[in-house]
Amino acid sequence: MIKSTDAGGSAVQVGAQSVYSQCITNHPRIIAVLGGTGNEGQGLALRFAAAGHRVIIGSRDAEKARTAAQQLNGRLERSLLEGSDNQAAVKAADVIILTVPYSVQRTTVEQVSAALGGKILIDATVPLKPPKVSRVQLPEAGSAVAAIQRMLGESVRVVSAFQNVSAHHLQDLDHAVDCDVLVCGDDVNAREVVVGLCGDIGMRGLHAGPIDNSAAAEALTSILISINSRYKSAGAGIRITNLPD
Amino acid sequence: MIKSTDAGGSAVQVGAQSVYSQCITNHPRIIAVLGGTGNEGQGLALRFAAAGHRVIIGSRDAEKARTAAQQLNGRLERSLLEGSDNQAAVKAADVIILTVPYSVQRTTVEQVSAALGGKILIDATVPLKPPKVSRVQLPEAGSAVAAIQRMLGESVRVVSAFQNVSAHHLQDLDHAVDCDVLVCGDDVNAREVVVGLCGDIGMRGLHAGPIDNSAAAEALTSILISINSRYKSAGAGIRITNLPD
Repeated sequence: MIKSTDAGGSAVQVGAQSVYSQCITNHPRIIAVLGGTGNEGQGLALRFAAAGHRVIIGSRDAEKARTAAQQLNGRLERSLLEGSDNQAAVKAADVIILTVPYSVQRTTVEQVSAALGGKILIDATVPLKPPKVSRVQLPEAGSAVAAIQRMLGESVRVVSAFQNVSAHHLQDLDHAVDCDVLVCGDDVNAREVVVGLCGDIGMRGLHAGPIDNSAAAEALTSILISINSRYKSAGAGIRITNLPD
Repeated sequence: MIKSTDAGGSAVQVGAQSVYSQCITNHPRIIAVLGGTGNEGQGLALRFAAAGHRVIIGSRDAEKARTAAQQLNGRLERSLLEGSDNQAAVKAADVIILTVPYSVQRTTVEQVSAALGGKILIDATVPLKPPKVSRVQLPEAGSAVAAIQRMLGESVRVVSAFQNVSAHHLQDLDHAVDCDVLVCGDDVNAREVVVGLCGDIGMRGLHAGPIDNSAAAEALTSILISINSRYKSAGAGIRITNLPD
């Protein structure tokens, strides 16, 4: 039996093949996942909760958030996640993860911006423009995430991460995710926190430069979608090679 | 002894640890490498020559090109490469690889455009803007390579490739290059030729969508430069994960 602990330190079993034996955080945080009812958000929420963080699913609809949290708790066989509306989730959290569709990225952030000051906003947004989601269509400003950093100003430390991680693999708790996380942000300390959070869920986060560099991760997602289709993959990812051990 | 063959089929030894035993092309082509006196160009020229293609180093200065070709022949211990000015190189070739700095990409292509019709132009250009080469600074149009396809029109099939491959590793003929090649282009058949050429030099080329998707590969290079600096790598690369065997 492989076990994990919740933020309070007590043991929780998350599956006989779970990868969490090595992923118990020593620094439990309160993490709000906005868009936590979507596939990517649910995958991240599950992994962070299983790793010992307190996770709050955020949604425009508090009831929908609570229902999603209950379902995820069912999968973890323990009540580790809560649900609330986006604003309450952000107020309670010290780290916020944004996993909403590009079309509502800006309005979602605007609605919670008053409570974001001093906190870390991890933005996983990919500027996909349906129906051509396998074609790179970056916004004129370059990066969708960098645009949010500029909108919010320096009081919020925006960090770009998780664009290239398959929701399918995130939700498959019995296996480690074979994908590196490119972590971009202008504040090195905030980036370091996010690199640490990646490690908590068994992934390798890599410092990938300033927030403008998020354009690369955002664009790469369309290539991965294209590759999934061409090569029949359930979720292609990336690894950075030739790094010293 | 591990051996390779030149385009004529006779054996050539390229080093006891060479990776070329499995890389003998069945479809030798005439490949012009414009910018073939630079590090990336020399690396590609060496690998393609050792794999059995006929390679012509192109440069604005024919004498400089011939000197570079001689030096590379010295490394291969056989006269496999020639040198000439860019225009003569393009005229003689059926595949052209462009590895010049971004600042001279457009003028170089303009100077040879009359001879490009019907051919495949593999553009490895990365729109780096010194001194901040570790910061993504894509051109306004999105991709530097897509801009060249638009400039040339449909008579030239432009394919984007090799942006993420370290010159250092390309030139180290004793080792395989641990990096996938993202191959983008609007013409699927031309892309397929380039995927095959990647295989000839022991690398995995992957169909990565239309020419606009080159923006991802171009942007990624700045992240790799940033990672090289932060993690002390001689040449970080990328691998796409979770593909079926």
